[in-house]
Amino acid sequence: MKNYNKQIFAGMLLATISGCQNQPNDTQVTQTELSSNDIISQKLVNQALSSTLGYDIVESLTVEVGPRLAGSEKDLIAVEWAMSKLNSLGFDKVYKESVQVPAWSRGHAKASIISPFEQPLVISALGGSVATPESGIQATIIRFDTLAALQAADPALVKGKIAFIDHKTERHISGKGYGQSVGGRSRGAVAAAEKGAVAVVIRSIGTDHDRMAHTGMMRYKDGIKKIPAAALSAPDADMINLMLKRDKDITLSLNLSSKNLGVATSYNVIAEVTGSSKPDEVVLIGAHLDSWDEGTGAIDDGAGVGIVTAAAKLIQDLPQKPARTIRVVLYAAEEVGIVGAKSYAKQHADELGLHYIAAESDFGAGEIYQIDFNVNPNVFEQVKTEHSSMTINGVTLGNNKATGGPDVSMMPSLGVPVASLRQDGTDYFDYHHTPNDTLDKIDPTALAQNVAAYAQFAYIMAQSELNLRPLAKKTDKQ
Amino acid sequence: MKNYNKQIFAGMLLATISGCQNQPNDTQVTQTELSSNDIISQKLVNQALSSTLGYDIVESLTVEVGPRLAGSEKDLIAVEWAMSKLNSLGFDKVYKESVQVPAWSRGHAKASIISPFEQPLVISALGGSVATPESGIQATIIRFDTLAALQAADPALVKGKIAFIDHKTERHISGKGYGQSVGGRSRGAVAAAEKGAVAVVIRSIGTDHDRMAHTGMMRYKDGIKKIPAAALSAPDADMINLMLKRDKDITLSLNLSSKNLGVATSYNVIAEVTGSSKPDEVVLIGAHLDSWDEGTGAIDDGAGVGIVTAAAKLIQDLPQKPARTIRVVLYAAEEVGIVGAKSYAKQHADELGLHYIAAESDFGAGEIYQIDFNVNPNVFEQVKTEHSSMTINGVTLGNNKATGGPDVSMMPSLGVPVASLRQDGTDYFDYHHTPNDTLDKIDPTALAQNVAAYAQFAYIMAQSELNLRPLAKKTDKQ
Repeated sequence: MKNYNKQIFAGMLLATISGCQNQPNDTQVTQTELSSNDIISQKLVNQALSSTLGYDIVESLTVEVGPRLAGSEKDLIAVEWAMSKLNSLGFDKVYKESVQVPAWSRGHAKASIISPFEQPLVISALGGSVATPESGIQATIIRFDTLAALQAADPALVKGKIAFIDHKTERHISGKGYGQSVGGRSRGAVAAAEKGAVAVVIRSIGTDHDRMAHTGMMRYKDGIKKIPAAALSAPDADMINLMLKRDKDITLSLNLSSKNLGVATSYNVIAEVTGSSKPDEVVLIGAHLDSWDEGTGAIDDGAGVGIVTAAAKLIQDLPQKPARTIRVVLYAAEEVGIVGAKSYAKQHADELGLHYIAAESDFGAGEIYQIDFNVNPNVFEQVKTEHSSMTINGVTLGNNKATGGPDVSMMPSLGVPVASLRQDGTDYFDYHHTPNDTLDKIDPTALAQNVAAYAQFAYIMAQSELNLRPLAKKTDKQ
Repeated sequence: MKNYNKQIFAGMLLATISGCQNQPNDTQVTQTELSSNDIISQKLVNQALSSTLGYDIVESLTVEVGPRLAGSEKDLIAVEWAMSKLNSLGFDKVYKESVQVPAWSRGHAKASIISPFEQPLVISALGGSVATPESGIQATIIRFDTLAALQAADPALVKGKIAFIDHKTERHISGKGYGQSVGGRSRGAVAAAEKGAVAVVIRSIGTDHDRMAHTGMMRYKDGIKKIPAAALSAPDADMINLMLKRDKDITLSLNLSSKNLGVATSYNVIAEVTGSSKPDEVVLIGAHLDSWDEGTGAIDDGAGVGIVTAAAKLIQDLPQKPARTIRVVLYAAEEVGIVGAKSYAKQHADELGLHYIAAESDFGAGEIYQIDFNVNPNVFEQVKTEHSSMTINGVTLGNNKATGGPDVSMMPSLGVPVASLRQDGTDYFDYHHTPNDTLDKIDPTALAQNVAAYAQFAYIMAQSELNLRPLAKKTDKQ
């Protein structure tokens, strides 16, 4: 958390705004400097920073629902919770849209080193993994620094073994280390099976040193044998390395009872603040409702649910609604393959031309330090100028290379502009996809700063008169 | 970790010592200021700070043995490891003494909230707990701030319920918060059963926010019903509190299969550096060899094993041994009731009059910031003066109220002086008794500072000509 002093900041804003409200005709300079959009945008910030609504929503979701794996019973309880919560907040519209999602059950996941030194290990099955045979798998391990090293390996060295991908995840404010290491999780099983491995284990994709493994989705490929896949906690991966220094021949025992359960029905849950003059045009702010099953889904993505819902609620309660509709989309089944978002894009294909811009909050509750856009390069500078009031909330105006977050990542290719409200993710991968993803990891002050930023962004975009399209082609983005 | 710069410090000492060695007859002042004991004591510091032996020993123990619960098979593997390690280090004597220890197996420990909101919980059975019936226990909970509040409760409110002791452990360099909260763990089951509770669960005795429960020993009392006892992780305890705000009626399901397995044989493992002129007099430096079963026993107490063994090894390798014998005692079964230490006191009852002083390292690997003693008040100031060279290693000379560490805690009542080399325990209870007690939690630099301090202490005490006895009565300690 930064030493950014919200109290002082809130005070500054209050002074500014109450000044404007009490003395509306004070000077021409004041009126020119602060447009009515700016005034409302700054008022939203004040309200956000003095409200606990965002945090209250995450608390409610994590305490009253908790883990909500896509396709599970709890997933449907989360949908009910969301419908009820959004209705209770008084949005103009609340509805849900069904999505077919893959269902999977974790079962147990046990592992130990059998030789040279017997040691229990802490692991987590990767999402989508098949089970081992009931008696488990016992095999020697072969270690690789990276997925690429495994892909380049001589199959003769891998055949019949358990491939161990030992890629460490680098800590970074942007979370970029995740992108560098996560391939081992998503594609490790295919790479290992192609070389004849009987299973794959990976060093957890995480930046912590807790003895907790990080789960997350993995994929199989048609025609390639499906082998079991699990993550080891960082201390366990360290231990294996120290054991390899003593003896190259390590035998591991692995036993998973995870199961793919076919297809289940889930729902994207949607709330709207109806636009006053352009109700058919949509500013979409999203988050995902599903979570992994080992924590309570607080930072991933209860935080996002709280942030975008509370931001929209502030706009819902304004005396004068903005021109465009604000649509909150709580996506289904992000964790298991951004399934709800793909479904949304299909179900709303005819309407995407009316999606003015989209953004998703799915990176915990760290403070937002920058906003990036992906809009027509010709209006990019004007878009930034429109958002200049965000800087007083600690948000720098960034570049025109936004991707928009996982659930809106397909939007630019469909012509829809996006924004990325970039959060401080320094600690995010300490807790991500582990039992440690719990409410106490969220700082209410930082969460409120996020609510403020999303409220400003959504309001400003819902009022903007710029034409954000067409987007630049990938090669000529700013 | 402190910002204390060991490199600079080591350089300072090297300059001092090499100066003295190269110019032994330099000035009378130098000779008076730096006794030969001081010179050797400071040389030990230098060697300790430039050696990785202490850390190597912890690595070896945690990687090659790992968890070693008293009375388990792994406990005997640890004893073999210790005998082999101490022998390989070339101590003058290495031997073991058998100890009868209680054996207990953890089994599984499952818990969940059934209503008002279904949630899985992360728990750990407390050491020594009986199992639940095979079908588990389902009952409503009743929450208490502290053990004392439970003890003061109306039995009618507790009868048939699961008592929940929700005492938070305060973080402090000395670890004193542990002493304030741990009664709920050790005595909670008795207090709860006396009021008619069917089980007891406690907020983990720990300072972290990890979703890991802290195990640790609990006790039953003859004539009071033995009820199952478990610890909840801090985030789970928080969640229950948030649920209680919503609904006072929380039903918990608890299922433990832990089992008391009677008595097993273990061993105190002992190594000695034989004294040159008073070999029958003993300076005892101890640690405990056993550990809880969920981590690898790195900070508790692999660190202590590494510290005292490496310290003694430095003295073993001196060209001239000190007057008294240095005895390293790696105690059995500390975790389950300081059983090895009690056995040692009995087995060595005839020899305790020759125990000059005793100290134990059992508080992780944080830097030592102070040394306290419990010696005859008349010589206390002289004892401090003798230890003045420890200050250059960051160790303040403290008070005469030492307790000496768990395994030597009975020594003062048996007339044996003790010292407490007090470590920075700020983070100790983040990891204590959890799966997170692994090698990565140890800072090698801080560990080496501990080795240096123990080597100085042991050497100085083995050379001292002071009479440390008799100890003050409790009422007139300095």
